[in-house]
This record gives sequence, C-alpha cells and structure tokens, in this order.
Amino acid sequence: MGGNPVIGMLGRRLRLGVVGGGPGSFIGGMHRMAARMDDRYEIVAGVLSSKREKALAQGLEIGLPQDRAYASVPEMLEAERKRPDRIDVLSIMTPNDSHFEYASLALEAGLDVICDKPMTNRVEEAEALHRLVGKTGLVFCLTHNYTGYPMARQARELVRAGALGTIRLVQVEYVQGGKASEEDPPAGPERPWRFDPLRGGPSLVLGDIGTHAHNLLRFISGLEVVELAAELGAVVPGRLVHDFAGALLRLSGGARGSFWVTQAAAGVENCLRIRVSGTKGSVEWEQETPQRLLWKPLVGPAMVYTPSGPGCLPLAARSSRIVKGHPEGFPEAFANIYSDAAEAIAARIAGVEPDPLALHFPGSADGLAGLRFVAAALESSRRGGAWVAP
Amino acid sequence: MGGNPVIGMLGRRLRLGVVGGGPGSFIGGMHRMAARMDDRYEIVAGVLSSKREKALAQGLEIGLPQDRAYASVPEMLEAERKRPDRIDVLSIMTPNDSHFEYASLALEAGLDVICDKPMTNRVEEAEALHRLVGKTGLVFCLTHNYTGYPMARQARELVRAGALGTIRLVQVEYVQGGKASEEDPPAGPERPWRFDPLRGGPSLVLGDIGTHAHNLLRFISGLEVVELAAELGAVVPGRLVHDFAGALLRLSGGARGSFWVTQAAAGVENCLRIRVSGTKGSVEWEQETPQRLLWKPLVGPAMVYTPSGPGCLPLAARSSRIVKGHPEGFPEAFANIYSDAAEAIAARIAGVEPDPLALHFPGSADGLAGLRFVAAALESSRRGGAWVAP
Amino acid sequence: MGGNPVIGMLGRRLRLGVVGGGPGSFIGGMHRMAARMDDRYEIVAGVLSSKREKALAQGLEIGLPQDRAYASVPEMLEAERKRPDRIDVLSIMTPNDSHFEYASLALEAGLDVICDKPMTNRVEEAEALHRLVGKTGLVFCLTHNYTGYPMARQARELVRAGALGTIRLVQVEYVQGGKASEEDPPAGPERPWRFDPLRGGPSLVLGDIGTHAHNLLRFISGLEVVELAAELGAVVPGRLVHDFAGALLRLSGGARGSFWVTQAAAGVENCLRIRVSGTKGSVEWEQETPQRLLWKPLVGPAMVYTPSGPGCLPLAARSSRIVKGHPEGFPEAFANIYSDAAEAIAARIAGVEPDPLALHFPGSADGLAGLRFVAAALESSRRGGAWVAP
Amino acid sequence: MGGNPVIGMLGRRLRLGVVGGGPGSFIGGMHRMAARMDDRYEIVAGVLSSKREKALAQGLEIGLPQDRAYASVPEMLEAERKRPDRIDVLSIMTPNDSHFEYASLALEAGLDVICDKPMTNRVEEAEALHRLVGKTGLVFCLTHNYTGYPMARQARELVRAGALGTIRLVQVEYVQGGKASEEDPPAGPERPWRFDPLRGGPSLVLGDIGTHAHNLLRFISGLEVVELAAELGAVVPGRLVHDFAGALLRLSGGARGSFWVTQAAAGVENCLRIRVSGTKGSVEWEQETPQRLLWKPLVGPAMVYTPSGPGCLPLAARSSRIVKGHPEGFPEAFANIYSDAAEAIAARIAGVEPDPLALHFPGSADGLAGLRFVAAALESSRRGGAWVAP
Repeated sequence: MGGNPVIGMLGRRLRLGVVGGGPGSFIGGMHRMAARMDDRYEIVAGVLSSKREKALAQGLEIGLPQDRAYASVPEMLEAERKRPDRIDVLSIMTPNDSHFEYASLALEAGLDVICDKPMTNRVEEAEALHRLVGKTGLVFCLTHNYTGYPMARQARELVRAGALGTIRLVQVEYVQGGKASEEDPPAGPERPWRFDPLRGGPSLVLGDIGTHAHNLLRFISGLEVVELAAELGAVVPGRLVHDFAGALLRLSGGARGSFWVTQAAAGVENCLRIRVSGTKGSVEWEQETPQRLLWKPLVGPAMVYTPSGPGCLPLAARSSRIVKGHPEGFPEAFANIYSDAAEAIAARIAGVEPDPLALHFPGSADGLAGLRFVAAALESSRRGGAWVAP
Repeated sequence: MGGNPVIGMLGRRLRLGVVGGGPGSFIGGMHRMAARMDDRYEIVAGVLSSKREKALAQGLEIGLPQDRAYASVPEMLEAERKRPDRIDVLSIMTPNDSHFEYASLALEAGLDVICDKPMTNRVEEAEALHRLVGKTGLVFCLTHNYTGYPMARQARELVRAGALGTIRLVQVEYVQGGKASEEDPPAGPERPWRFDPLRGGPSLVLGDIGTHAHNLLRFISGLEVVELAAELGAVVPGRLVHDFAGALLRLSGGARGSFWVTQAAAGVENCLRIRVSGTKGSVEWEQETPQRLLWKPLVGPAMVYTPSGPGCLPLAARSSRIVKGHPEGFPEAFANIYSDAAEAIAARIAGVEPDPLALHFPGSADGLAGLRFVAAALESSRRGGAWVAP
Repeated sequence: MGGNPVIGMLGRRLRLGVVGGGPGSFIGGMHRMAARMDDRYEIVAGVLSSKREKALAQGLEIGLPQDRAYASVPEMLEAERKRPDRIDVLSIMTPNDSHFEYASLALEAGLDVICDKPMTNRVEEAEALHRLVGKTGLVFCLTHNYTGYPMARQARELVRAGALGTIRLVQVEYVQGGKASEEDPPAGPERPWRFDPLRGGPSLVLGDIGTHAHNLLRFISGLEVVELAAELGAVVPGRLVHDFAGALLRLSGGARGSFWVTQAAAGVENCLRIRVSGTKGSVEWEQETPQRLLWKPLVGPAMVYTPSGPGCLPLAARSSRIVKGHPEGFPEAFANIYSDAAEAIAARIAGVEPDPLALHFPGSADGLAGLRFVAAALESSRRGGAWVAP
Repeated sequence: MGGNPVIGMLGRRLRLGVVGGGPGSFIGGMHRMAARMDDRYEIVAGVLSSKREKALAQGLEIGLPQDRAYASVPEMLEAERKRPDRIDVLSIMTPNDSHFEYASLALEAGLDVICDKPMTNRVEEAEALHRLVGKTGLVFCLTHNYTGYPMARQARELVRAGALGTIRLVQVEYVQGGKASEEDPPAGPERPWRFDPLRGGPSLVLGDIGTHAHNLLRFISGLEVVELAAELGAVVPGRLVHDFAGALLRLSGGARGSFWVTQAAAGVENCLRIRVSGTKGSVEWEQETPQRLLWKPLVGPAMVYTPSGPGCLPLAARSSRIVKGHPEGFPEAFANIYSDAAEAIAARIAGVEPDPLALHFPGSADGLAGLRFVAAALESSRRGGAWVAP
C-alpha cells in the first residue's frame, strides 16, 4: 500500500461519510482507523445516532465538523448533495438489518458504498442490492476484512498461479469463545441486536463469523460451494440463536470440504484457520498468527511465506506497508480493503482504469454468495443434513 | 513409567510373541521398540512370515532364538504351550483382516493379547472378539497409541476432573498427505493390502486413521458418538478406496462435534489435532508438537501444560520418563500403551490388583466402538448424509 | 488507545510538522501512519527535501497544503511561528547526524518534539539535548517504538508489579539479515548515509538496532547497565562499519545479562527477542510474534498473555485497540508511542495533568542512556573486552 | 536407525556393563533406555552401588542377573574377564569425578567405553584419557546426546555441504530453571555432588550444560573456539557454584559468536537453542521443539526441515526410526549416540569397516575440547573478561 494513488488521481483524499459505529463500538473504530491508515480518505460526515444531540456529541468526539454530524442517512444524503465538498463514499457499520436500506439509498444517490458484512439479512435483499450495484456501476465494497491479510492474499495467488495444482480438499474453521458464557446475552428485556434474529439475521453464528469463513474459503480456493450438508444449533442452554454451525461441503471442480464455526468455545480467542490442498501441495493459514503462510508442497520441505518476504506474489506484496519481519495485523488487513476500494473509487471518479491489483476486495457478488450459503445451511439443517445447493 | 513393576511382581520380564511386522515394516519396528522401551517384555518368539525360510531369517534378524521363529500362529501357540518359558502375550501387527483370527486363537490359548488397530474389519468380528475377551478375563490391549501421549492423557484427566465443566463442542481432525499422489497405489496386479477392501477393511481412511481420531475423541472427551452425518469418498481420481471422510457429530450429553480425516492432503505430515470445549474452557492438542497441551480457560490467560511439568495430573505424570523440557515422542507414547498393558498382565498373572492408573490403555470395547463408528459412517454416507446412530 | 483525549482536551487534533522521511522512505511512512492511526494529529507542514521543488512535490504527494511544504527547518519554524494555526509538534525522521540540530531548534522555538532514534550521534549532544528538554519543560518523545507493543508493556508491568520478584538475568538479542549481503552497501562513490560513520553514527549496528535492544531491556527490566564487556566488529569482509555487537552485562541490583545484535545474519528477518528472569519466574517475548507474552512462573504451568486478553495490566490494556485475538502489529506499536506523546502534549498545552499511563514513552533520558551505552561498548571493545561503565 | 547391523555383524547383541545410574537416577534410566532402543545391546552387568547389598538389590531391580551385579568397577572387570560371555563395553554414568578412573580402567582392560559428559573434571585428565583412547584404538563415545537429534545432524550436514556458505555468526544458549530456587541445594551437611566443586567439577553450570552447548556449537558449525571473553558467576545469593556463564566467542575462520548458559532462569524448562549464520543463510534449532529445523536462506522463503521429511541428508535420515510427522524425542536422540557407537564397536570387533555415517558420535577429542573451553572460560572470567585461547 505504498504511495497515495488517490491523491495522485484526484489531487485530494476521498471524502467519507459514515453511518453507525459510534465511540465505544469496536467495529466503528476499526472502520475509521482503516480509512485513515493509508491517508486515502477524510472522514467528514456521519450519522452516529438517530438522536440529534447524541449524533452531534459523538460526531464531535470522532472529529467531525459540527455541521456534518447528522441524525439520519436521508438527512445526510440530502444535505451533502448540496455541498461542493460533498462526500464521495458512504461507509455502513450499523446492525445487519439496516445494511440493505442504507446501501440502496447511497447507491441511488450516486455514492460508492463500503458496507460491513453480512451484506444483508435476507437473500432477496442481497439479490436486489447486487442488481442495483450492477445497474449503477458504482463501487460496492463488503468488508470481509480477513481477505485483506497479505498472507491470505498470497495463498489466493498461489492457487491462481497453479502452485497447488487442482484443488481437492478445503478445511475452514472459525472458532471463538466470545459467546461461551451462559450469561451471554444477559437476561433482561433488552437483548443486544445480534441476539435478535430480526436484527442480527437468521443465524447469529453464520452471520457474524460464518460468512467470513465462507468468504475466505472462496477467496483463497477460487471454488464455489456446490452443495452442503449442515447442522446448526446452540450448545449454550436456553439460547435462541445459533452458536455453532458445521457443514460438509462439495465444491466446484469436485473438491470436498469441511466447515466449522462456533462462538461458544470457551477460552478460544479468534481462531480463523484454513487449509487448502491441491494435487501439488497444501497451504495453511491462521488468523491469530497472520504473518506466516505455510506452503507444504507434495515434494520438498515446507516453506514459510511472510509479508514483504521473498516469494510474495504481486497482490500479497502490494498488501504490506513495511519491510519483512515487522508484523502488520488486523487493522492493516482491514485497511487494505479500504485502500483498495479507495483506489477503485478514485479511478472511477477520475475516469481512469484502476490498477487490476486493487480489484480484489469483496463485492456484492460475494455478499450474495454468503447469503445464499447461509440460506442453504439453514435448509439443510432443517432437513436433517440433506445435501442442499446454495 | 518409572521403576519396573513387572520385574517387581514376577521377578522377570513378560515373554512376548509377535506375529507380523517383519524387518522393513514401520509398524512392526515400532511395536518391538515400544515393547523394549521400559524393559517389561522380552521378545522371544515370532511369526514373521508364513514361508518357513523367510520366517527363520527374519526372526534371526530381529534377534529371536532360532527355535522360536515360527511359520504360523497355530504352530507357535502349539510349540510354546509345551515350553516352561512359554510366551505370556501375543502381539498382533498383521494386516487388518487377520486380527480377529489371531486374537481369538491367542485368547483361547490363554494368552493376553496386544493388537494393532483397527481391531477387526467387520462389526460382527469385533462383537465376537469383545465377548471372547470378557469370557476369558484376559487382557486385550488395542494399540490406539495416540492415547499414550502424556498430554493427551492430561487432557483426558482435566476433563474427568471437571476442569472443563460440561463438554459442549469437540473438533477432531487427522490429516495426512501420504496418499496424495496419483501414483499411489502404483498401477499393477499387486495392490498393497491397505488398498484392498477385503484385507484393509471397508474404508481405507477410516480404518487407517479415522479410528484413531474417533478413539482419541472418546478418550479425551469421555463422550460417545450418538449420531453422525457423514460423507466418505475419494478425491484422488480413479481411487477405489476412501481417502477422505467428514462427519458432523452428535455426542452424549448434547455436545456437538466435527470430524475430518484424509490421507490426500499433499504435503501434510501427520496432523492429528483435537479441541475439546466445555463450559469452563477448552483444551487443544496437536500430535506434531505433542509436548504442549494448551488449556484456554473461560476466565484467565491460556496455560501450557508440558510433560513432567507443573500441574500434570497423575495419569499424565506417570506417562513420562524424563524431567520436563526433554521431549518424548511417538515411540514413548506407543510404549506407554505397551507398558501399561504389561503392568495389567503382570498383575493378572501374579494375582494382584494392578495400579488403576495402568488401566487406561484401549481395549476391546474401544475397538468395537471404532468398528461401529465406521459402519455408521458408511451407512450415513450411502444415505446422503442422513443421521445414523453407531 | 480508546477515545480521543486530544480532541477532548483541545477540541482539535495536534498539528504536526515533519522533517525527513519523504515518499519511499520506510521510516517516514511509518511515522506518518503512526501519527494518523488514532486521529490525534493532523500532518500539516513538512520539510521533505532541502531542494525547494522536490520539497513541494513530495509535500503535495503526502497531502500537505502547498504553502506548508518547506525547504528547511528554520524556514518552517519561522513561517509557522506567524500562523494562528501553527504546528504544535515537530517530528524528526532525518539521518542521525541532524537529530540534535533540528530537535534543539524546535525546542527553542517552543515546540514539542518527536524524534527518531538514536537521539544523537554523540554523547555530548545527547547530554546537551537532555538538558535543553529539562530546561524547556517541553515534551520530547524518542521513537523506540518496540516499547509500544502491548506485550512488551505487559512484561514491564509484570516486573513493576513484582510478579517476577527480584530480577536476576536478562537476555536480549536483535538479529537481522538485512545487511548480510556482501553487495551491501554497493560499491561506488555514494554510500548510503547509514554506512557513513559521520552521518550514521560511530557504530552502524548499535545505532540502528543496538539502541533498540538496549532500550527494550531497560524498559522491561527496569534495570540499568552498570558495566559491560563488549566486542564490536564486522563479519562481512571489507565492511568499515560494525555489523555485529556482543556484550556481557552487569546490571543494577546484581543481575547479569547477555546482549547480541547483528544485521549480518543472512535470512533472518527482524528477530528482536528478550527474556527477563527473576526469582519468581521469567517472561519471554519475540517481536516477530508480538501477540504473545510467555510468562513462565517458578511454580505452575507457563501462561500466555495476549493483547486485550485476560490478565492484561492497565498499561498493556490501554495499548490495544481491538478485542483479543485480532492481532495488532508494528504500526500500532509505533502509534502507541505517538498517541501517548500526543496525550502528554495536549495535556501540557491544556494545562492539565496527563493520564500517568500516557507517560511511558521513551524520552531524552532514555536517549542519553542509549548513547552512553554505545560509547561504553566502543571503549570496551577497543580495550579488549575490559569492563566499562556506561 | 533401521535394521540391526550389530546382529548382522556379530550374530548377537553387544554385552554392556554399566556403572552408576541406579533406579531413581534420571540419567541412568536414560542411558539404559538408549541402549535398549534399537536392540543393539544387552545390559548384562553393572555396578549400581559400592555397598554390596544395595548393588545386588538395585541390579535385580534393573533386570541384571544376580551374579553380575557387582560392587566396584575393578571387581566387575576382573570377574567379567573370566567369562566367555563377558561384557564388550562399559557405560559410565557416575558423578563427574570418577569418569577418568573408570574409563581408564575399562580401556586398559580392552573394553570400549561410553561415558557421560563432561569427560573429566580436569584438563590434564582429559588429555591423558584422550591419549589412552588413541593408544588403545578402542571406541570411546561421549554422550553429548543433543548431537543425536536428527535435525541437529541435518544442520551439521547442511553446513558441511556448503548450503550456508562461509560461517560468520553463531549464537548458542542453554537456559534452564532447574536451579533457580534459593532452596537449591537445600541447606545441610550433605550437598548433592553437583554442588561440590571437587566432585561436580570447577563450574557447575559449565560442566552440567555448558559443555553441551559448546559441543553442539562445534558439532553443527564445524568451527572451533579460538578465543573467548567470559564471565561466570552465581546470581542466586549464597551459592558457591556457578549458575550462569556468558561468553563472546572468536571462532575459527573469523566467525564470531555468543554463548549464554544458566540454570537459574526460573520457569524455563530446557531451552537449548542455536543459530548458525553463513554467507548463504541461517539455520535455527531449539531442543524443546526438536522436530523442526528452520533454514532461512539469503534468497527465498524460509524452509522447515523435519525428521524423515524431504531434503534430509543421509546423516539426518539415518537418525530417525519413523515416517515423517511422528515425533521422536530426547530418548531417541540419546539412542542415536548409543546405536552409532554400537555400530562402530561391532565393526571393530568384527574387524570390518564401519559405515562412515555411524562415526558422528562425540569422542575423546570432543571431551578434551570441552574441558579446555571450561578452563579458558574460568581464566577469562578471573582476568576480567580478557580474551583467552582455550
């Protein structure tokens, strides 16, 4: 992520409006940090709350100008429309059930969109949004941020370059302990939105982390899930939402796979890991030590790829900011998504061709595939593990 | 494995006869090394081949006395019966299809038995053998050797001590690359016995490594598989035997699990790993770095148990020979199974009570559970992933 | 690094001027990214080159306003002095031989200073600068960035809390391979400044990375080097600057230590690692996997501290931005130094007491200690390994 | 360690007598296990105690025949001399101060000798013993067992094959916590022999583990220590023996090195690690995870060698018993020393040429080099860190 192609193309940074993610929100802070990291965006407007006073206070707290801290997305779009220095991009980091509405409004207003995952809660919304993106020709970036890690990208590029040969087997797991406690959510009338199927989506664990695992599998292997046999459920007693999901996968090209996600594995931090095996070797990557990609060839000793290290293919090389041995982490991976999107957006605005390497961020087609995967898993589980095509 | 309780109880080592595993066999050398490790056995008789000359030559090569290198198990049993220094134990390391016959003959001849896994190829044989073991009261030890690792035993004992609380989730995988090559087995009229379903059993991958994974899951978690939904198959084109197997598991007590085994993951060495999560925390163990058991409690930092290190529970402590920081490995884990069995056998012969800690080696009930698991997986896969009870 | 205390105290971000580190410089990009990370600074002015045209072009490239891209530090200080929105802070990322001059100018102009390490090339300059900092009462922050890692800070706080007991032994090594090649520096009339003792300082390896290792040792252990016996030299033939340095250390309180740094270890990336042992246990940390701090107590199993994980003491907890399991890296550690300094500077400007937890960034006393350590090592090496007090 | 060349050459196993290492001794049990591992020795005679009754009881306990449990080495040598099945080899695992006497007696009686390290306590004894070995032409094997690890041997062979180019830098450390406690040794009239300089040698830490580190450095790098500057001492208050030792090294060929050993690092298990860097790359190995050898080339990604894995050179390949991915450990490394010595001894007895690959076990020249290293370190430390040639 060297240089600043946005300033190069536009003579200025992109102007970003945000909705959601006020102070105290993990994901809001992360989105804004990712936007700032490579200096390709200025965060100039936002909707931090639907209550005007809180929206203003929180806007000031994150450094917005007083007159651009709005109390609703329509209000922001209307007001910004009239400004010469209006926002270029809307970034959406609200609960899942509002993604569709805000993204649609923004696209219709001619704004490029960056949107947290899952793209929507329902397949129909995902389909409509994907169509709208196509119709408008605007940039839509879905923050499946794990695809921004340099070594996840190196894995993808090794697959694409044929280093693994034909892919035969894929294992992906995403295991967390954050929802292992029986006190989570706390009893009481107000459940956090994630625990409310109407707001958080039909399957907590699949929406929250399952779509990440599914997307990473597709991103690295280049394969699609053709059929799956799944079981979803809750192991924490009394919980109404899913806290685990397992699936056996049949993938395009005849590969087979295993998928396992849970947020109820007490004590585990954030174990997203993947192994992709082809006829010529296997790659292995774990998010908790993202600075290493293990490449285990059919013939010869295992090798360790590292960011900015020898053997990095162009997409991976572009995704680091520092010389080898100086670890980058989750924020930089998140920023890679933002910065690539910035490059695509700036190119669109400037009317030039973007660097093809900038175009590997997830988009609406990925979001739609994720929603279809969730729907198929729900159906398979309801049907006792029957094989279902997403 | 301190001291030598066998010499203590009997004033001598146990006399061991072996069948199978001639020079050049990986597993034969391992069985004999495991028998020698703690000096509780003398290997004094054997059937290394059904051809008399080869049996003699190979017997001498592994150090047998000339007159005790036999050409068949019946011959050995008959000849040994007449000797005052006759063998106490038969150890079976032949292809899977002969386990049932040899084990039955030995038990009927009053010998204790050590037998390589899987116990038999068919459930009916396993049931019959299990009954015969019960009837004779003799010791039957099945070499699911991974349960001999000190840290696998520590994991089991943490579960039994309640450190994990109620078990909720189990993941086990056993991934190898040894059969990733399309040249394996080589074309030609003589297939290795493992690739012949009649000799190697109905599912190569399940018999070879799947039963290990299943056994380790049961050993550590203390749970049984109640129902499974599975898919078995081959990803290497043209292969007639299974080289991968995946299953979703419903376990006793309501826990859920994921099971994944394959021998076609090019470049992977011998990745048997397991995570067991309970209400109070998770344990994680990998066979390739067996000197570490990760304990991740619900509350507090992760901890690393090591063999002979602090916090080792008695079964784990007993399973090391050296002070902490001096790694033991696969041979010592295998030897733990042999040495525990030796202690049980010597106690039976001496008519004394064995140390209860010696009684954690796998037996015929475990072998039968393994065969039933394989059968259920085959049925579920045939029935399109339907849930089947083993 | 939650919230934005700078905006809280001043109602605005700090205005930062930079000198050095134009586009293409590793360290310049890192300084600016660190400044942006937590949104506590705006980079509004800079001297990117002494050639006016290049200064302007590069200033625009990094997003400076056209009228604030200067061609010298005095020019910048003079011009900024007259602006109502003048810079608050000067950040220095030029070759080592100019640190003293620019820092002195800035302090005398009433600016707080952030300065790359080593603080100066000569002890006398370091002494003078340290006195000037004291006299002005301004904030001086030296970017020994490795002290910004959450787990390095956790180690320090464990020591300070007495968890290790009395410190007895310290090992620190900083091993790189970046200067292993015999073609480095390339032959020719223009040597890179680091290879010129007049510009890069009297010992390349000690100035470049040795001062980092020395500082980290002091930061975590809380001890000072009382005496050392050292050898410095070059193992790459024909090299006129040091590429390795070893020392035995006698530390305050009677502890002993080992120090080893080199840039000629072919293939090694950036292995800065430290072990500190006290009467009650040892901590171990490696920069290449910074998300883990191993705590090995005298009694009980080893434990693994992780950023934002359980057991993090306040200084460590403050130094992460994300929930556990989401790795932060080198840029975030660097940013921690910048953001802490920002908090101290804003408090000074606002006339309020800073959060004591913000005051753990390295300062001029640390820089002076580093220079004295280098001088003592040079003397000891000249005197054949004699013990010398820094 | 495939096959059994001893039986192949002699038609029988070697007959081993042992002195020292009775039941309860860590090192005694390890020597005997190492002797049994590959079935090349029978342990048939021993001196377990100088008290006749205890010698007999302990002899029976380790399985010796009643008439070959002796009460002194001279008695054993005299009695065995008269037997047709007399011992071939004496293995010495007594306190350090008796090694010289027993080894000399055995060699003079025409026995090959296996001896625990350090070879002797004094340089003069080491010189005399080395001469005696040369004069007799018998096999003398010193159990610097860490050189038996397959990956330590792979490192050596990579160096010898030129993969690293010219060696420039060596770091070795051996850090333990076993003597970190202030209660070690316990107060009282009877100190353990290791804490008595007359019995344990002039420097506890150097004799116990320092000679291992020194030997491993020489074994892998192929270099000799030409000069050293050292400091030895005790960090545990009131301790009369050394518990740490550090040295800077000048090695043959101009390489430089760092050496650090201690037994007072509370909580550390058995961290022997080494890095050897040449012009073409570096190897890194740690005893606590011995299954991995990291090879970091100057050009290209790091590689991981594993026992029996791809790229193993012949000496490493010969040093494993199992297919890749099945970890061997400390006992197998120890057994490699014993088994190689057995092959050399059997070849000597049979009057044939041994396999050159069997001749990489440490011998009397290595033991002498170790003693000279210790003496030089003592002198350098006494002389305030002066450079001293061993």
